[in-house]
Amino acid sequence: MSASAPISKTIYIGPFVHSASLAELEVCENGFIGVDENGIIAFVEKESNLEAVQEKHSWQDAVPVHLKGNAFLFPGFIDTHTHAPQHPNNGLFGKTTLLDWLQTYTFPMESSFEDLKRAETVYRNFVSRTLSHGTTTAAYYATIHVPATNLLADVCLARGQRALVGRVCMNSDLSPEYYRDASVSQSVADSKASIDYIRSIDPEGSIVRPVVTPRFAPSCTTECLTEIGRLAKDEDAFIQTHISENKGEIALVKELFPSSKSYTDVYDTHNLLTPKTILAHAIHLSTEERKTILARGSSLSHCPCSNTAITSGCAPIRELLDEGHTIGLGTDVSGGFHPSILENVRHAVWTSRHLALQSELGDKAKLSTEEALYLATRGGAAVVGLADKVGGFDVGKEFDAQLIDLGNVEAGGSNDSHFDAGPVDMFGWESWPEKVEKWVYAGDDRNTTAVM
Amino acid sequence: MSASAPISKTIYIGPFVHSASLAELEVCENGFIGVDENGIIAFVEKESNLEAVQEKHSWQDAVPVHLKGNAFLFPGFIDTHTHAPQHPNNGLFGKTTLLDWLQTYTFPMESSFEDLKRAETVYRNFVSRTLSHGTTTAAYYATIHVPATNLLADVCLARGQRALVGRVCMNSDLSPEYYRDASVSQSVADSKASIDYIRSIDPEGSIVRPVVTPRFAPSCTTECLTEIGRLAKDEDAFIQTHISENKGEIALVKELFPSSKSYTDVYDTHNLLTPKTILAHAIHLSTEERKTILARGSSLSHCPCSNTAITSGCAPIRELLDEGHTIGLGTDVSGGFHPSILENVRHAVWTSRHLALQSELGDKAKLSTEEALYLATRGGAAVVGLADKVGGFDVGKEFDAQLIDLGNVEAGGSNDSHFDAGPVDMFGWESWPEKVEKWVYAGDDRNTTAVM
Repeated sequence: MSASAPISKTIYIGPFVHSASLAELEVCENGFIGVDENGIIAFVEKESNLEAVQEKHSWQDAVPVHLKGNAFLFPGFIDTHTHAPQHPNNGLFGKTTLLDWLQTYTFPMESSFEDLKRAETVYRNFVSRTLSHGTTTAAYYATIHVPATNLLADVCLARGQRALVGRVCMNSDLSPEYYRDASVSQSVADSKASIDYIRSIDPEGSIVRPVVTPRFAPSCTTECLTEIGRLAKDEDAFIQTHISENKGEIALVKELFPSSKSYTDVYDTHNLLTPKTILAHAIHLSTEERKTILARGSSLSHCPCSNTAITSGCAPIRELLDEGHTIGLGTDVSGGFHPSILENVRHAVWTSRHLALQSELGDKAKLSTEEALYLATRGGAAVVGLADKVGGFDVGKEFDAQLIDLGNVEAGGSNDSHFDAGPVDMFGWESWPEKVEKWVYAGDDRNTTAVM
Repeated sequence: MSASAPISKTIYIGPFVHSASLAELEVCENGFIGVDENGIIAFVEKESNLEAVQEKHSWQDAVPVHLKGNAFLFPGFIDTHTHAPQHPNNGLFGKTTLLDWLQTYTFPMESSFEDLKRAETVYRNFVSRTLSHGTTTAAYYATIHVPATNLLADVCLARGQRALVGRVCMNSDLSPEYYRDASVSQSVADSKASIDYIRSIDPEGSIVRPVVTPRFAPSCTTECLTEIGRLAKDEDAFIQTHISENKGEIALVKELFPSSKSYTDVYDTHNLLTPKTILAHAIHLSTEERKTILARGSSLSHCPCSNTAITSGCAPIRELLDEGHTIGLGTDVSGGFHPSILENVRHAVWTSRHLALQSELGDKAKLSTEEALYLATRGGAAVVGLADKVGGFDVGKEFDAQLIDLGNVEAGGSNDSHFDAGPVDMFGWESWPEKVEKWVYAGDDRNTTAVM
């Protein structure tokens, strides 16, 4: 599997599925997607035939690619929040919650990325993993190390995975002495060095772009936040950080920044809330904080696997959508235990159902399957600033897709208990919307047979 | 992969993992499990060497099987509640909750099992699926059809999967006219016919055993429950049914059985609560109901995937364990969306974390990884009456195991994004307890490379 643009005009013929809107999933059984030499979608036709489509667009020279069996095209997933160096810790969290989990698992692992050989092994493996799960765009946290951060950008560029890559800033004594920036000036200089490197390898930012990454408020002194906010402004760069994940963390922020009105206010007063800011978690925000974020045009990354796994809480996504927030999904590896956005689609639904069970909102808290898939694609595209480029099969967008194949159950069943084709069983009587629903709730990386 | 007993004395050499107790998981890195010609564990030795073990037991003639790399033995999983005919509906539930989900998805699918060809395809596929996920013992609901129910028992026997197989009884008008027993006498006669058949193909019940299966209280009239209770007593058979899954269902039971004190009381007054009774869900039970169930010695099947997926609620498992209840895990396909007990181990943990977030119990509601794995093995064994036979690697028990292989990340990482060896990445520096935790939270059927 590799992420590469087609080299000649291509017409993909067969079913495609994408979000028509937040509430509506389009399942087109008989589609024709024309992709030009630059990998841009030239046309999308439905319920036609190949000859008519070729004639209409004068594309008789295009290569036809016929999808077979239970295969369909779906937009590439967008992971709006993940920590690449924490990949080896996936599944490890024992009995911890956020603050002790950082000290026990996260900081020791991240600090080891001073070793570039380790960084290469982990980063190449992780980018392969996320691609295998259909993630064609990701916003990555790296570590504080400039060489390893730059290496991650190299890997993403080589594999053709769109990425925001952020060198982590953290200078406060929340972080252990063995793993933090020595000074504010080092925070700024190292961040700037990584931004410069990433812009040197991809000047137009068509694949990799830098992102200013203050870890989260408690990791940074107010001086550091000020200087980092200035750097982001000077560089016109994306910003990513965490917000309001855990009640203990919120109390800590209040203690560390006594003059701020709220967690959100800490970022706002340091000029870190911009239309290019991605805020992960956003579970326990007050009404006023939500208004501020909306006013600044900043985006949210919802990380349901992580929020459940480290018992952080249930973000009220349905309400936040109603308020008009821009929201995508994030795996938050390794607070989240799974590098798959599809797993997070499911958990976005489950988390909303738990919210429905426990809050006064009841069924109004529930996210639908359609809404969760929107967050994973178009929602995420808007969060990472690529709403005009990826997230759906629209004319003028890049052809950014995963090929999903669901296989077939042989008549009479099977006595073989190895299922290389994946975990979904298609018996032949399912409608196309049912096929898609079975993939969403029971599929995995085996069903993503290619990314394009 | 097939489930078969070894034909000669065998010593399995390598790591094994099982529950030492509810709270404690034993991870033995250097184990020797001796399995005799009948598939019974003759000895378990730790931290020794092969020659010493052979000499101690005079087993010089035994075949040594060396586990390699990141492989270990784990007891087979036990699924204490699942509906085999609903397997094709896995992942389909849309926006429904329990009562409308039954009418929309479940009854139409189950009624089609009058067609034996369909039954054969689905049942062979489903038994292969559950084995692929390491389930070596399962309590199955079939449908109301005797021939298809008997066929399911045939398939389990042929594949060597221990099973309770139940022909479903349902005669009330909650079920549609096209899919219910025509009369109480038919309920009893058909159930008896299936019991007789299953006992004829496996007289000692070493692999398959019948289970009397009133679907749930609202599906049966009081006369039917009375006669079915009598049949179970006459036949000294296991009983399985559902209890207290959904608030709408509980209200319906109250309306249908106005003279009963509670949902539990309905079953109790119809002699359906015995030490051989398995009650699925048990989410919203009152203190008094819990006392009654405990007094009767009946068991509980916790189905966390299902309870989240159809928004039923969070069963207070940690509390129920403290009270002394016998509890296993159930996939509850297709209310549950996944045929894997490992997935339900994870969801048992997640559900308990949501309970911790929403109830006054706080952290006391949390299930640990160790406890969830206990429910999946020894807990389930007790639920299905096999506590002396399976669930752990103890002398005298059957050698009932799955071989877990976690693979290895190659040095330098990989540029290949197909991961046939499974979803877990082992970098080589993990401790054995960490390897096991990574399997629990990120593994899948690809890691179950054999069942024994």
